[in-house]
Amino acid sequence: MPKRAAGVSLPFLQPETGGGEPLHRQLYERLKQAILSGALAPRSRLPSTRTLAHELGVSRGTVEGAFTQLDAEGFLERRVGSGSVVALPEHARLPRSTTAAPVRRSGTLARPGLSRRGQRLARAVLPPEPRDVQPFTPCLPALDLFPTHLWGRALAKHARHLGPGLMTAGESAGFQPLREAIAAHLGTARGVRCGWRQVLVLSSTQQALDLCARLLLDEGERVWLEEPGYLGARAAFESAGARVCPVPVDAEGLRVDVGTARAPKARLAYVTPSHQYPLGVTLSLPRRLALLEWARAARAWIVEDDYDSEFRYATRPLAAIQGLDVAGRVLYAGTFNKVMFPSLRLAFLVVPDALVEPFTAARAATDGHAPLLSQAAMAHFMEAGHYAAHLRQMRLAYAERRDALLDALRREAEGWLRPGAAEAGMHVTAFLASGGRDADVVQRTDTKRLGARRLSPLYLGRGAEQGLVLGFSGASPAGLRAAVRTLSRLRG
Amino acid sequence: MPKRAAGVSLPFLQPETGGGEPLHRQLYERLKQAILSGALAPRSRLPSTRTLAHELGVSRGTVEGAFTQLDAEGFLERRVGSGSVVALPEHARLPRSTTAAPVRRSGTLARPGLSRRGQRLARAVLPPEPRDVQPFTPCLPALDLFPTHLWGRALAKHARHLGPGLMTAGESAGFQPLREAIAAHLGTARGVRCGWRQVLVLSSTQQALDLCARLLLDEGERVWLEEPGYLGARAAFESAGARVCPVPVDAEGLRVDVGTARAPKARLAYVTPSHQYPLGVTLSLPRRLALLEWARAARAWIVEDDYDSEFRYATRPLAAIQGLDVAGRVLYAGTFNKVMFPSLRLAFLVVPDALVEPFTAARAATDGHAPLLSQAAMAHFMEAGHYAAHLRQMRLAYAERRDALLDALRREAEGWLRPGAAEAGMHVTAFLASGGRDADVVQRTDTKRLGARRLSPLYLGRGAEQGLVLGFSGASPAGLRAAVRTLSRLRG
Repeated sequence: MPKRAAGVSLPFLQPETGGGEPLHRQLYERLKQAILSGALAPRSRLPSTRTLAHELGVSRGTVEGAFTQLDAEGFLERRVGSGSVVALPEHARLPRSTTAAPVRRSGTLARPGLSRRGQRLARAVLPPEPRDVQPFTPCLPALDLFPTHLWGRALAKHARHLGPGLMTAGESAGFQPLREAIAAHLGTARGVRCGWRQVLVLSSTQQALDLCARLLLDEGERVWLEEPGYLGARAAFESAGARVCPVPVDAEGLRVDVGTARAPKARLAYVTPSHQYPLGVTLSLPRRLALLEWARAARAWIVEDDYDSEFRYATRPLAAIQGLDVAGRVLYAGTFNKVMFPSLRLAFLVVPDALVEPFTAARAATDGHAPLLSQAAMAHFMEAGHYAAHLRQMRLAYAERRDALLDALRREAEGWLRPGAAEAGMHVTAFLASGGRDADVVQRTDTKRLGARRLSPLYLGRGAEQGLVLGFSGASPAGLRAAVRTLSRLRG
Repeated sequence: MPKRAAGVSLPFLQPETGGGEPLHRQLYERLKQAILSGALAPRSRLPSTRTLAHELGVSRGTVEGAFTQLDAEGFLERRVGSGSVVALPEHARLPRSTTAAPVRRSGTLARPGLSRRGQRLARAVLPPEPRDVQPFTPCLPALDLFPTHLWGRALAKHARHLGPGLMTAGESAGFQPLREAIAAHLGTARGVRCGWRQVLVLSSTQQALDLCARLLLDEGERVWLEEPGYLGARAAFESAGARVCPVPVDAEGLRVDVGTARAPKARLAYVTPSHQYPLGVTLSLPRRLALLEWARAARAWIVEDDYDSEFRYATRPLAAIQGLDVAGRVLYAGTFNKVMFPSLRLAFLVVPDALVEPFTAARAATDGHAPLLSQAAMAHFMEAGHYAAHLRQMRLAYAERRDALLDALRREAEGWLRPGAAEAGMHVTAFLASGGRDADVVQRTDTKRLGARRLSPLYLGRGAEQGLVLGFSGASPAGLRAAVRTLSRLRG
């Protein structure tokens, strides 16, 4: 009787040479799956390592390695002289019906068991992130003008001297020198009145909105949202189960009177006062004060998203609402991801004193803190004046790009596309003046990779206007002119 | 009549020279506050810029700068020839009582208006993060042995060539080369069976737990938690409003039978099977299979936290539970923050196919994605073999450190501190064998900065054992011996 009769036959075990995994590992995996699936029944005896090695054409060490591991994990019982026996106790085995199923997991399974809030989160509709560099991609900074060498040097400086100070866990609220630099910058540049302790370093505006929604809103509570408005904010508040109440925007910004009439007891108002997204208007001072007064009286919160306020071309920017707030109702959010570059993942939220502790605790409980190295590099970049210089240069460059876009629209698309407010920011909204649907336009231009976005999906209620959101910060003046020509040729 | 009679007197406006802010900015701020607070009544006329400059001893340009800004913001009406008038319309003003209040915000305010879930989040009790380098600080890697130069080089390589590919927004699920490297590593090192698409790059285990809690649990649903167990997990699930059910741990790990009896319909079980936190035991194979069978039958989720499984000293580690799962119920979490360094902020979650999409959407809606530069550097570090080499070296170094700690405990604290399981990981739990309270011990040693943590607060139910959680990975053998001597001298 040949030796192989001493154990079950195992043809399916043949390992694949040339694959990535070591042979003993492959053998171990296959044996384990065979045991778990029931292909190798409990108490069945395996061939000796010598026999199996011969049979499979591998070294005895390979088989020995696999058996040792299976032994350690309790899949085999090895006894000197009497070989190896499948050892998985019957009572511990998965039911046959399940184990016989193929290992691919989702295909045949029912819908995954998400929670109700999980379903809301998974359904959230977010604005497409600026991943492709296309002429009209909104919120895309001028990557071609970014001072890569200065940033690289700031990073390298800290990476080279990576000591315990920058390697151990950072504070959840953020790296103190960066918080100080942000507070100083916001005070002079944006009229934000805060001490550095009120500044929390986050990864993105989206994280700021998510934290605000979780900390300040319970399910079913109402939130004012500008109409049209920022999809990311809507996603954050709706994911949190809040009831979003659209409040129209006119030439002076949010219609505070309409908000007060429709949802006087809302718990929170989300606004983009310095440069309304997407319409580009500025919230007037009387409206600002009315909004603050409503929030004070209703004990509601105002989330001020100052996303691209640094770029203003005609007049000096209005200071932030936060600087006018004496009742401690404003949370001020800003981001470096639009001024520096999108993959940086550094943003900030300035909160009233009373909220510093709860927000810091929540940050710790939800994801910890931002990476220390990039925080330290950002602090250095600001302290050295590189940030202010970069802002100045971008303000000039974006003004030129904006002019080029507006000029090209006037020349190539007059009567078809009517630009809205364009005194600030990194995009302009152009309405379809002669009718038609923005969906059709974007679909027609899709293959040209222009990056224009539709206006109408940014409306929550009825009466959506048709138009295009055209970023101008990411492309050269010549690139923008060419893109407008392409766009107008495809006018349809 | 002297010229200054042409406007109100403004002595409080005197700017401070030598301060950080430009004079025109200071003047602007003070005027604005005076108008908002009512100190300057509406329609009151301001002195001319020339007069005011003279009066305050500043240049006329300084006053002009402040007035221009106030004019732009609607606080002043300027008319050629007739000077400047305070322009804030009465109806838009904040009520006197509020505006008269000092600008400091929180002091006199009532408790901040957090939501119910916000209060839960803010109350979350988290494990102290490894911020101070102390001999027994748990989860602190050997920063002294970290190959800073290799990591710095990996970072610099990508920072120097920072092009659009790494500057635009990254995928929410993570940078593909890093996801691939993680999947490959987990397959061979941990027996995790997954394609790279199932790997989500996150910032920390805490973020993984928070996402699991939000996506898989609704308020009031039950969760199995190991007893004693990891505070970070408890914080994540309790913050989400789940009801946490403690399930005892014995020498074979989680008592699945007790869990099944106490909370058969729990929606999720959180486990640390390869090295239970804090007791250090390994979940046995029969228990693993029983856990999987319960989850399959109850349609519950298993969150497998494999936080320091890479470090195993006596035997080869058991493969991850994820590799045994044929029903698609296991989510596998791991982190680089403990193997590399805590401030790195890169971790991962491997989810069943059916959950890839919802988790990716949730990541996008909650904070976007991880920074691309560190993801790219980490991928490079792994592909170049530095990660595997670092793991091997740390395994040797930690084994030596563990031996030094156990040896010192035997010599200096025999009969007082009884070490628990110590075959793996970065810490050992030492029970107070002769009675006493761990709180007293930690309090006595507090000033010595030893970093020992208490065991008893890691119990949720009654019957907490008293002991110390002693990390051994962050200090040299000599440092650990000295720390044990200090500890035992303060035995009390």
